[in-house]
Amino acid sequence: MNDTFLKACRGEKTDYTPVWFMRQAGRYLPEYQAVRGKVSFLELCKNPELCTEVTLQPIDIFGFDAAILFSDILIAMEAMGLTLEFHEGRGPVFPDPVRSQAAVDALIIPDPEETMPFVMETIKLLRKELKVPLIGFSGAPFTLATYLIEGGSSKVFLETKRMAFQAPELYHNLLDKITRCTSLYLQAQARAGAQALQIFDSWAGIWAPGDFERFALPYVQSIITDLRKMTDIPIIYFANNGSTLIDHSKNAGADVLGLDWRLNIGDAVDRVGDHAVQGNLDPIALFLPPDELEKRIKQLLVDASSAKGHIFNLGHGILPQTSPDQAKIAVDAVHRFSRK
Amino acid sequence: MNDTFLKACRGEKTDYTPVWFMRQAGRYLPEYQAVRGKVSFLELCKNPELCTEVTLQPIDIFGFDAAILFSDILIAMEAMGLTLEFHEGRGPVFPDPVRSQAAVDALIIPDPEETMPFVMETIKLLRKELKVPLIGFSGAPFTLATYLIEGGSSKVFLETKRMAFQAPELYHNLLDKITRCTSLYLQAQARAGAQALQIFDSWAGIWAPGDFERFALPYVQSIITDLRKMTDIPIIYFANNGSTLIDHSKNAGADVLGLDWRLNIGDAVDRVGDHAVQGNLDPIALFLPPDELEKRIKQLLVDASSAKGHIFNLGHGILPQTSPDQAKIAVDAVHRFSRK
Repeated sequence: MNDTFLKACRGEKTDYTPVWFMRQAGRYLPEYQAVRGKVSFLELCKNPELCTEVTLQPIDIFGFDAAILFSDILIAMEAMGLTLEFHEGRGPVFPDPVRSQAAVDALIIPDPEETMPFVMETIKLLRKELKVPLIGFSGAPFTLATYLIEGGSSKVFLETKRMAFQAPELYHNLLDKITRCTSLYLQAQARAGAQALQIFDSWAGIWAPGDFERFALPYVQSIITDLRKMTDIPIIYFANNGSTLIDHSKNAGADVLGLDWRLNIGDAVDRVGDHAVQGNLDPIALFLPPDELEKRIKQLLVDASSAKGHIFNLGHGILPQTSPDQAKIAVDAVHRFSRK
Repeated sequence: MNDTFLKACRGEKTDYTPVWFMRQAGRYLPEYQAVRGKVSFLELCKNPELCTEVTLQPIDIFGFDAAILFSDILIAMEAMGLTLEFHEGRGPVFPDPVRSQAAVDALIIPDPEETMPFVMETIKLLRKELKVPLIGFSGAPFTLATYLIEGGSSKVFLETKRMAFQAPELYHNLLDKITRCTSLYLQAQARAGAQALQIFDSWAGIWAPGDFERFALPYVQSIITDLRKMTDIPIIYFANNGSTLIDHSKNAGADVLGLDWRLNIGDAVDRVGDHAVQGNLDPIALFLPPDELEKRIKQLLVDASSAKGHIFNLGHGILPQTSPDQAKIAVDAVHRFSRK
C-alpha cells in the first residue's frame, strides 16, 4: 500500500510529493473513451464494474498516488428526487429548477446506501484492487445548489444570487437540505471504504468574500463537523477560482486546501500554513513543450516546499484535449524532482 | 462641468465619491432597448448620432459622474481586416480565427480616424453635449487576441494558451500587432476629445500570475507608455477576475485600477495604495432589497475610504435583468453617503 498521499494530507513527512489529477479518469484517455463509447454518462456512473474499470485506468497507466471514485457531483442531487439529464455539449440539465419553498419541500434526504448503492459498491470493488488510497467526493452544497436553482450550468449565476439576496430564508432552506444529504452521502462513502474525501466547490469563485462567508462556507463547515464525529480520514476542500477566498476557506475545517492556478502556491502556503495544500498547475500547462513543462513543475515544487504537506495536482480538471503522453511526463517529473 | 471623476482618478480631493457603471448604456434601460430595436448591434456601434443618444441616456436618467463612449472592444479588431459577426445569444464570432503567421501577416494596422471615423465623430458629438467627463476605451491586447484566436468567446481559452505555450513567437507577433493597433486607436480617441481612457482586460483572470506577467501585462504597459508621450489624461486598467493579479497589474502604468468584486476593496487599497481604485460592487448586489443595497454601498465606501482616490463602480458590467430603479437607488446612495 502506497500511503504517500495520506501522509501528505496529514502533514507527515513523505519520500516524494504525491500526485493525482482532477478528472484523471476521463475523456483524454482512449481507454476511458472505449468504455464510455458503450454507455451513456449516467449509465457509466451507475455501473460499479465500469466505474471501477475507469477509476483504475489512470492509476495503472500513470502511477498516480491516489485514485478518485469515478462519479459525478450531481448523482446525489438526482437521489434527492430530481430529474437529471446530461446533454452532449451542454452539460447537466435539471428540467425542473428548484426556486420555491414547495420545490424545496419536495426534495427528499435520501439514504445513500439505498438510493446510491452503486457508489458504495464501486468503493468496495476499488478497495480490493487498489494499491493507492481511494478518494471519495461530493459537491459542496452551494455549488450543488447552483445547478438546482439555475436548472443547469450558468455564466453569472443570477438566479442563485438573486435567491440568496432576495429570499435568504428559502436559499438557506434549500442549502440546509442539500447539506444534510451531502453529509450523509460522504459519511456513507467513508463507511464503504473511502480513505479521504474531497468536497468540490466548483463555483465558489463567483462570490465576494463576505457573501462566500455567508452563503457558501457555513454549509461546508457543517458537513465537515459532522464527518469529524465519525471518521478521521483526510478531508480536502477545493474552492475553485477561490484564490481570493483562501483566508476564509481555510476555516472550512478541512485538512487540505485545494488551490486553482491563479495564485502562486508559495503565496498560498504563506497564508494557509497550518494546512496541507493540493494543486495547482494550470491544466493547460500540460500543453507546454516537455522541457518547459518539467521546468514549471520543478518550480512549483520549490514554491510549495515550505508547505505543511503538498499533494501535486492540477488547478482544475485535466482537459479532454490533453495528450496522455504529457500527463505521463508531468507525473514522472513530480516524482523525480521531489524525491529527496 | 462636473470634474469629480477626473479628480478622483488623479487622487485629488473630491466633495463626494464619483460613480459610473460599466455597461451603463445598455440593455437594462428601456430607453436603450428602444434605440437598439431599430438597428443591429454593429449598426448601432457605427452610428454616431445613435451612439451619442445611448451614451447620454444613463447620464440624464441617473446622474452618473462619467460617461463612457458606447462602442465594443471588437470594433478595432474588425478594423484590422477581420470579419466580425454578432449572433444573438452566442456573442461575437470571428468566422476565420487567427492561428497562423500568415493570418497574423494579413492583419492591417488601421488608421483609426480613417477606418473608425464613427468613433471619433461620436466622441466629438458627446463632448458638445456632456457636462461630465467622457471615457474612451479599448480592449487589452490579450483579451482582444482571445477572440481572434478562439474565433469568439471561450470557456477555458485552450487555443489561446496553447498558442502562447507552444508557439510563443507567433503569439507575440499577433499580440504585438494588436498592441500597435490599440495604441493608435486610444491615441486617436484622446485626440478626438476623450478625457480618460479605460483598457478592459476582460479575460485576464484565466492566467496564473507568472503567465499574466509574460503573456498579457507587457502589451498593456506598452500601450500606456505610448499614451503617456502624448497625453496626461487618466488611464484606467481593468483586469477582470484579476483580484489575484493586482500585485502585477498595479505595474501596468495606469492611474486607476479597476477591481472586480472578488476582493474586499479595503484589502485591494492596502496592496495598491499609490493608485486610485475603481469598483467594486457585485453587479448582482443591485438585486438586493433597497435597504440592504444601501447598507452594502455604505460599507464599501467605508472600506475604500483610505484609497488615494475612489471611483465607485460595479465589479463588472450591469446585467440586462437589472431594474433601473435599483440602479438609481445605488447611484443616489453613493452620492449621499460619500458627501462630506
